[in-house]
Amino acid sequence: MTSLGDKGEGHRETTALLGNEDEGSVQTQTKVLNQGSWTQVSCPCCVSEQVEPLVLIQLSDNIQPVTKRWLISLIEVSERDGGAALLAHPGEDECGDVIVVSAPRCTLLRATEDLGLCKKYHNGDMVAFSYNDRDNFSNVDDMQEFLTLAERQYIVKYELDFLRAQKEQKIPGVPESQGVLKARENICQKLEKVGVIKDIFPLHDKQRLTDLCRNWYSGKQIWGQPLDSIQAYFGGTMGFYFSFLDFYTWALVPPAILGLVLTFLLPGGGSGGGVVKEQAGVMEGVVEVDDSPSVSGHMVQAVFSMLWSTLVMEFWKRRSSSLSHHWGLLHLAERFAEPRPGFHGTLGINPVTGRLEPLFPEWQRQLRVGLVSVPLVGFFLGMVVLGMTGFYHGEALAQGFHQESGSLFSGALLYLPSVAHIIYTNMLGNVYRTVAMQLTEWENHREESSFQNHHTTKVLLFTFFNYFAVLFHIAFYKQDLPLLRKRLASLLIVTQLVNQCTEVVVPFIVDRFFSAPQKKQQEDDPNVDKLRAQRSLPTFPGLFAEYIELLVQFGYLSLFSCVYPLTAVLLLLNNVTEIRADAYKICKLFRKPFSAPVSNIGVWQTAFEVLGFLSVMSNCWLLLLSPRVREFCLEGGISGRNIILFAILVEHVLILVKMILAFMIPDEPDWVRIKREQIEFHSMQALGQQKL
Amino acid sequence: MTSLGDKGEGHRETTALLGNEDEGSVQTQTKVLNQGSWTQVSCPCCVSEQVEPLVLIQLSDNIQPVTKRWLISLIEVSERDGGAALLAHPGEDECGDVIVVSAPRCTLLRATEDLGLCKKYHNGDMVAFSYNDRDNFSNVDDMQEFLTLAERQYIVKYELDFLRAQKEQKIPGVPESQGVLKARENICQKLEKVGVIKDIFPLHDKQRLTDLCRNWYSGKQIWGQPLDSIQAYFGGTMGFYFSFLDFYTWALVPPAILGLVLTFLLPGGGSGGGVVKEQAGVMEGVVEVDDSPSVSGHMVQAVFSMLWSTLVMEFWKRRSSSLSHHWGLLHLAERFAEPRPGFHGTLGINPVTGRLEPLFPEWQRQLRVGLVSVPLVGFFLGMVVLGMTGFYHGEALAQGFHQESGSLFSGALLYLPSVAHIIYTNMLGNVYRTVAMQLTEWENHREESSFQNHHTTKVLLFTFFNYFAVLFHIAFYKQDLPLLRKRLASLLIVTQLVNQCTEVVVPFIVDRFFSAPQKKQQEDDPNVDKLRAQRSLPTFPGLFAEYIELLVQFGYLSLFSCVYPLTAVLLLLNNVTEIRADAYKICKLFRKPFSAPVSNIGVWQTAFEVLGFLSVMSNCWLLLLSPRVREFCLEGGISGRNIILFAILVEHVLILVKMILAFMIPDEPDWVRIKREQIEFHSMQALGQQKL
Repeated sequence: MTSLGDKGEGHRETTALLGNEDEGSVQTQTKVLNQGSWTQVSCPCCVSEQVEPLVLIQLSDNIQPVTKRWLISLIEVSERDGGAALLAHPGEDECGDVIVVSAPRCTLLRATEDLGLCKKYHNGDMVAFSYNDRDNFSNVDDMQEFLTLAERQYIVKYELDFLRAQKEQKIPGVPESQGVLKARENICQKLEKVGVIKDIFPLHDKQRLTDLCRNWYSGKQIWGQPLDSIQAYFGGTMGFYFSFLDFYTWALVPPAILGLVLTFLLPGGGSGGGVVKEQAGVMEGVVEVDDSPSVSGHMVQAVFSMLWSTLVMEFWKRRSSSLSHHWGLLHLAERFAEPRPGFHGTLGINPVTGRLEPLFPEWQRQLRVGLVSVPLVGFFLGMVVLGMTGFYHGEALAQGFHQESGSLFSGALLYLPSVAHIIYTNMLGNVYRTVAMQLTEWENHREESSFQNHHTTKVLLFTFFNYFAVLFHIAFYKQDLPLLRKRLASLLIVTQLVNQCTEVVVPFIVDRFFSAPQKKQQEDDPNVDKLRAQRSLPTFPGLFAEYIELLVQFGYLSLFSCVYPLTAVLLLLNNVTEIRADAYKICKLFRKPFSAPVSNIGVWQTAFEVLGFLSVMSNCWLLLLSPRVREFCLEGGISGRNIILFAILVEHVLILVKMILAFMIPDEPDWVRIKREQIEFHSMQALGQQKL
Repeated sequence: MTSLGDKGEGHRETTALLGNEDEGSVQTQTKVLNQGSWTQVSCPCCVSEQVEPLVLIQLSDNIQPVTKRWLISLIEVSERDGGAALLAHPGEDECGDVIVVSAPRCTLLRATEDLGLCKKYHNGDMVAFSYNDRDNFSNVDDMQEFLTLAERQYIVKYELDFLRAQKEQKIPGVPESQGVLKARENICQKLEKVGVIKDIFPLHDKQRLTDLCRNWYSGKQIWGQPLDSIQAYFGGTMGFYFSFLDFYTWALVPPAILGLVLTFLLPGGGSGGGVVKEQAGVMEGVVEVDDSPSVSGHMVQAVFSMLWSTLVMEFWKRRSSSLSHHWGLLHLAERFAEPRPGFHGTLGINPVTGRLEPLFPEWQRQLRVGLVSVPLVGFFLGMVVLGMTGFYHGEALAQGFHQESGSLFSGALLYLPSVAHIIYTNMLGNVYRTVAMQLTEWENHREESSFQNHHTTKVLLFTFFNYFAVLFHIAFYKQDLPLLRKRLASLLIVTQLVNQCTEVVVPFIVDRFFSAPQKKQQEDDPNVDKLRAQRSLPTFPGLFAEYIELLVQFGYLSLFSCVYPLTAVLLLLNNVTEIRADAYKICKLFRKPFSAPVSNIGVWQTAFEVLGFLSVMSNCWLLLLSPRVREFCLEGGISGRNIILFAILVEHVLILVKMILAFMIPDEPDWVRIKREQIEFHSMQALGQQKL
């Protein structure tokens, strides 16, 4: 790699420019690039003295200057001529392996309209931005105020993603065997394929980041998170994740209180004398069979869990839609924008927008999903079950063999099934991830959000199945409540310890001790190009792992919590630190990710809701299994058949109540509904008047 | 009543005008009114030679000429001056008890825009009509082509419904004690209350009606119905009802074939030898306990029923949305139009449309629904159950008493519980209907469709419960399958016989023999005002009874069909005649009803879907009860507990499959989705461009 900042000229220009930094407080530390080296804008309204570096294109080490010049000119020229209409900067010199990209005002504004972002109108409403009407929007002259940093950076990516070859052409400086662009081929994808572009990522803004960190986790902010600043800095997906995490953590308070009450205050109430003993039992690893909670405590837990999960998700929907309105994300026009870069099809006129673009019939996509993806996912889920069955079978075999022979060898053999199962699960998981990604690509979704939702659903189902298969096996097949309780408690404690270690302790140590020398060096020479530090960070792995962690938590809590009432308390403690750990991680340990504007948490919403319904079934089933309930029946002389039928009835009634409740609570607050209807009414009127 | 046509002058004018009738074939027979007596239009574009009488206002017998003149002038003056901007005709003379109303072109066009009706644009698309852009729509100069008859008539009603007093004023010719209008009071509602207006109804168009009848039921049309003509003549609600009836009847073919196959072709297959015997058993009234269908037949029926009900409703949704697009009803703007006449609230500015109108907060309505309506409906359902329990209890008592004493008196006493139950059910039904109507009024819905949906839901739940309570009692509480089979067969046969009698035979006889003399008299004197005949017909009772009949059918079929496989065959036979009977009834036996433009069958859709889910539960339960299954278990050595658990598992899996299936089949055909998205895209663009 060509090292940055060591080149004579670039360095000198950089230091010369730093004097300006104090003048504008919003000016960023990364503005150490020579302002004069930016490509010129053609449009007079876009000329500005300071250009803000937004995105970095990391090129290959052995990039030819001719290729780099060609790419810069592509980025620079207007969209009419097949360019991206952005601003490019060659980094510290013409031969360096980076291009820094920014965006002029006009490009930003036009993309804002394309994406359907809402911005503040002069009357204070959030209105879908219209380029023609730009002068009526607030702050439209100051892009730093008008668009958030994340939006500006996403727009650059959006423009780069849709660079397409105007006609068949050769890429300059790349061997002809691989460097030929077909007409309408996606240029960035092609360049990544042939190795010219290694990565494209948004740049951190040190000043804002420091401010954000202070408000977020390193300061005295304990009870809330600066959600607006997070959304502004990291973008929609990240904003929604942290909002959800925040909301969900607060929502854990009622079940935590209930758990504490059931465990410590009402141990002797009714026939529930076993609860405290049970806790002790778990801790000591000695679980007695009749240490289950009382029937009434059990019932209270089950009904509470049902109500709680419904209310949490319904109120989250309301919260989500007000956030979405507040952040101007309520009218995203993804359907009408360009298709995602990976989308392919026969070229034709889009019947809706009338634009020339690749088309792919909807029914064909549905056939692919229904006839190929669904069965394949089912097959992999079957493989998980098969693996588990094999594991139990193998364990029984090994145990039998060990009891027979009792040798050291057979003792070692006892571990074989576990090891084999772990290897099998890991391999299966790796294969599945590849298959899931390729299947989703093959389904050929037009919109990025649809792609994400389908991909997430696939991985989610598998991961969830993997996590819960054992618990379900214990609960439904073995029907062994004490074992379930033991397993749940250990899972909760182990998972949390592991999480805290990987998420808090390890990063902290790495940052404190391993990164410290590097930091010091930077402080010695503050003008060294900060880009280098960002290029050395790993890519952010995405929010999937974070969401699945929450989902698994929610699963432990709602599916099985009635066997272990302290679940919510442990989760609450975990989440309070989780918030800070996640914040620290995303701010310090990874490259800044691109984050598309989204209007909700997508498929995760559905996943949590489905879990809510599963929890009703699971709780009714656990209630049925509970030894206390069995005792109760025997005492009352109720037949086993009738008690099962009663449990089914209860289950169906609870599900009905849940559905009615979900139906009765509106998914958006009244004021959001009114704002939405206002816009619908105005656009209906506009449609009528337009044709005058 | 002042008899029509006997008045000298009116009569002479009428006959004089009849010469014109041959000139225009679309001209109607009811155009016997003196064209010169119509009020004048102010707008030059609305002047036309022929005015089509659309709606008749039936006034009280002792109407004062001054009141009539006042009302006519109200109807006549422009909307700006608080009138309805319609055309009025005083009937045969100034003192008659009718006002005939028509609508000028401008009023029709403006209302078309208000209602959000879509009409054919010059490029052939269906586009929401815009008054400003009227010249680009096809047929805009010929109202008879541009709007359907039902639409023109509904628009007259719509305009009349929104006549409001400009200021506090006296109604001329009405005693002051009751005849004072408050400012903004609804005039037509007030006039109906004080008895000035007896009824408002749309007029039949004899020529079109004869054409429609010929194409519909009296001609050789066997396989289809002229749905477009029905929709054009009778309007949206009626069009959707007959489309649904048509669709549903066709959908009965597969289960009918399956029923026939299971009954006659596969009687000895597997262990299912009892089916034919069973049929015979029902007919002879001798039911043997082990005459149930085979396990496999049973399973096939249950799974088929689940798949069938899902597919029927999903494909109906698609059919419904294409009909809705075809009829221009896809973009109804009810939300943005004036609230329904019965709506009240504090006067304020509607935040969405910015118009002055009564406002009522949404949350308050939801509170009323949730905290008052739902518990009250629950209470009445409880009363139904109570009544049934009382009936069974009373029957047991009476039987015991009769067995003890055996006297004639105690024999007569055996009938007492049935009689008491019938009286109780009827009284409860009457009370409930009043309560349901008043509750729904009190809920204060802003839109007519929302009002209708809430009212229908209430009555529907009660009626359905009433119909099925006994069957559910037999199936779930008594668990007596043979009795259920017997009851179902007799209900099906009895219900159909009764229906056929009341719907086909009786009306036919009445029409043939009782109406014949009257008809003859009319033929003698064809120029007698045809209005009289229409005034003497009873008001159309609405489609509730028709829909509930279909729903109950669907219930018999999907909930219990597996105990009586021939259900679908009987229903199919019934429905083929039902279509003609309904058609005959609505064309000949009632006043023409107003029919609002609607975009689907509303809450009935949901009712059928809910029934689909209930049917899965019911079928699984019946499977469990089936003696064959019990035998099968005993033979296989499966414990009762396990077979129940298996049934629950099957139920849950079937429901899951049903939900996935419903989710996978798109609710609208691709071409409708594209049309809809086109409009959304255009209105989004229009909104952006409008502010230039």
